[in-house]
Amino acid sequence: MSSSDNARSRTITWELPVLDPAELAGMSGLDYLRRGLDGENFRAPIGALIGFRPVRFDEGVAVFESTPAEYHYNPIGSVHGGFAATLLDSALGCSIHTMLKPGFGYTTVELKVNYVRPLKLSTGRVTCEGKVIHVGGRIATSEARLTDADGKLYAHGTTTCLIFPLGEKR
Amino acid sequence: MSSSDNARSRTITWELPVLDPAELAGMSGLDYLRRGLDGENFRAPIGALIGFRPVRFDEGVAVFESTPAEYHYNPIGSVHGGFAATLLDSALGCSIHTMLKPGFGYTTVELKVNYVRPLKLSTGRVTCEGKVIHVGGRIATSEARLTDADGKLYAHGTTTCLIFPLGEKR
Amino acid sequence: MSSSDNARSRTITWELPVLDPAELAGMSGLDYLRRGLDGENFRAPIGALIGFRPVRFDEGVAVFESTPAEYHYNPIGSVHGGFAATLLDSALGCSIHTMLKPGFGYTTVELKVNYVRPLKLSTGRVTCEGKVIHVGGRIATSEARLTDADGKLYAHGTTTCLIFPLGEKR
Amino acid sequence: MSSSDNARSRTITWELPVLDPAELAGMSGLDYLRRGLDGENFRAPIGALIGFRPVRFDEGVAVFESTPAEYHYNPIGSVHGGFAATLLDSALGCSIHTMLKPGFGYTTVELKVNYVRPLKLSTGRVTCEGKVIHVGGRIATSEARLTDADGKLYAHGTTTCLIFPLGEKR
Repeated sequence: MSSSDNARSRTITWELPVLDPAELAGMSGLDYLRRGLDGENFRAPIGALIGFRPVRFDEGVAVFESTPAEYHYNPIGSVHGGFAATLLDSALGCSIHTMLKPGFGYTTVELKVNYVRPLKLSTGRVTCEGKVIHVGGRIATSEARLTDADGKLYAHGTTTCLIFPLGEKR
Repeated sequence: MSSSDNARSRTITWELPVLDPAELAGMSGLDYLRRGLDGENFRAPIGALIGFRPVRFDEGVAVFESTPAEYHYNPIGSVHGGFAATLLDSALGCSIHTMLKPGFGYTTVELKVNYVRPLKLSTGRVTCEGKVIHVGGRIATSEARLTDADGKLYAHGTTTCLIFPLGEKR
Repeated sequence: MSSSDNARSRTITWELPVLDPAELAGMSGLDYLRRGLDGENFRAPIGALIGFRPVRFDEGVAVFESTPAEYHYNPIGSVHGGFAATLLDSALGCSIHTMLKPGFGYTTVELKVNYVRPLKLSTGRVTCEGKVIHVGGRIATSEARLTDADGKLYAHGTTTCLIFPLGEKR
Repeated sequence: MSSSDNARSRTITWELPVLDPAELAGMSGLDYLRRGLDGENFRAPIGALIGFRPVRFDEGVAVFESTPAEYHYNPIGSVHGGFAATLLDSALGCSIHTMLKPGFGYTTVELKVNYVRPLKLSTGRVTCEGKVIHVGGRIATSEARLTDADGKLYAHGTTTCLIFPLGEKR
């Protein structure tokens, strides 16, 4: 088989997020995130690249979905661990973001992922749901699980985020 | 500014890895990985997607590099955490892979990432170096750091992998 | 105040566990652990030292309790992080142990703890409940939370354990 | 063998740390910790309980040592994971504490431990050395290893701490 028989290509399109800092500072985290469910203009470029999308944001909950594809593969025959890590990081961080009052921002300080089954093309669409565990003054934690349509678990994780008043020198 | 002014696109091309299981089983991890440095045919599709590449494999060491781009961004103004997680996972796992004798495989059971600075377009090329900490009969651990050209640290992590004889029922 | 006014002492008593390997190999993890609820002879010396005890073992669940004391303190005014880590490690590992069939053993390969509130003398009795997340052929994961009598959360964690047939060379 | 043949006891003695908050606020972390090397009065009660002691504090480095004993055992034949977690937590947190200027405090937000070999009575004295990886304005990280007299590795870990100005409402 010649190498060129295996060549594939895919074109991705994204838009640079247009952020108005004053508008952003006046919105709660939940309101901000929900805008991303409607308008292309607020979607994450990384979501276009990897091929995942937000499906639900509630207080303390963030849900994303994606479908493993050939371009997510590592060279040893399954989806690269970065795929699950990216979805878990999104669901974990955004579940904390939904809890923020106007005027506050957050940043992820650490992410922990457990891989329990390999993701393959045959897995089909997967859902990643993040839920807040604790929100304190400075530190928040959350947990997330990545499952297929039958509820079978593929990966799970936790995160720690730092919360800060927007405008605070860091 | 109209939304379309921000529209960008990028076409990625990859090849499906052609693995001959018998050939693979006869190679050490280090020999297997070094083939990926030369031939397109052994590169990871995920590497083409995210835009990272292996630069060095030695006993217990694996180094990758990449350059943060607009399509790696989250919607809150910096590179998505999945970018660093993907590079760290690659360097961590492959540093363990370099230690495997012919006839053995591995799988990542957990990944831990610490984010210490945001990655931006202005960061430029980053290098991710993974180093083995411990290799036992069944379990191996490694550590990795993601730094820029000046050696400034952006993220670091550790992993735990399960090692198994190829062909063992799991 | 003279230093001697602060001197305290405590005498701990423990028994060396008497393990009959043949008997152990014939019991399920749950049966083995439940013996520890009744007989002093099967209690852990570490439990006598730190002052914690098992209160419940069910399929996939392990619960321990303890009460923060002065001798658990670090020099900066709260209970040392090792106290919560020890309780979480017990609940996490034993929740996996409850799932093991006769002839299998386990060992903890990694432990992750999040500290969300300081433990003090005023906290009173705390409960640590561990629950299994996933049990595979070789790898199992679990999660645990440490709460006070009002259900307030102080720490939470996850673990990864390696499962192996007793007698397997490792 | 009757059960009573296995009964052991040990009496521990500790002193309640006498902290003068004003004095503490005027000292750097390194100066504060070094006092603990000399005077009983500044030692941690937990250190008396578990049986570990600080041996060295330098900028970014903290070293503790201990010797596994029967009273550290779990009921399945080796030292309980809480022993290594306690030593690692001490070395990890104190290595960050050594970097604090007067007027700043810290708290551990998460701890990650990897267990690579069982600790036994035969292991003898172990040393746990923690080293700072990153110190930022709010967040610091460090790594630590637990080794025996021959340098053999038993466990390693990382931590994330939150740094704050003393007196800041949290």
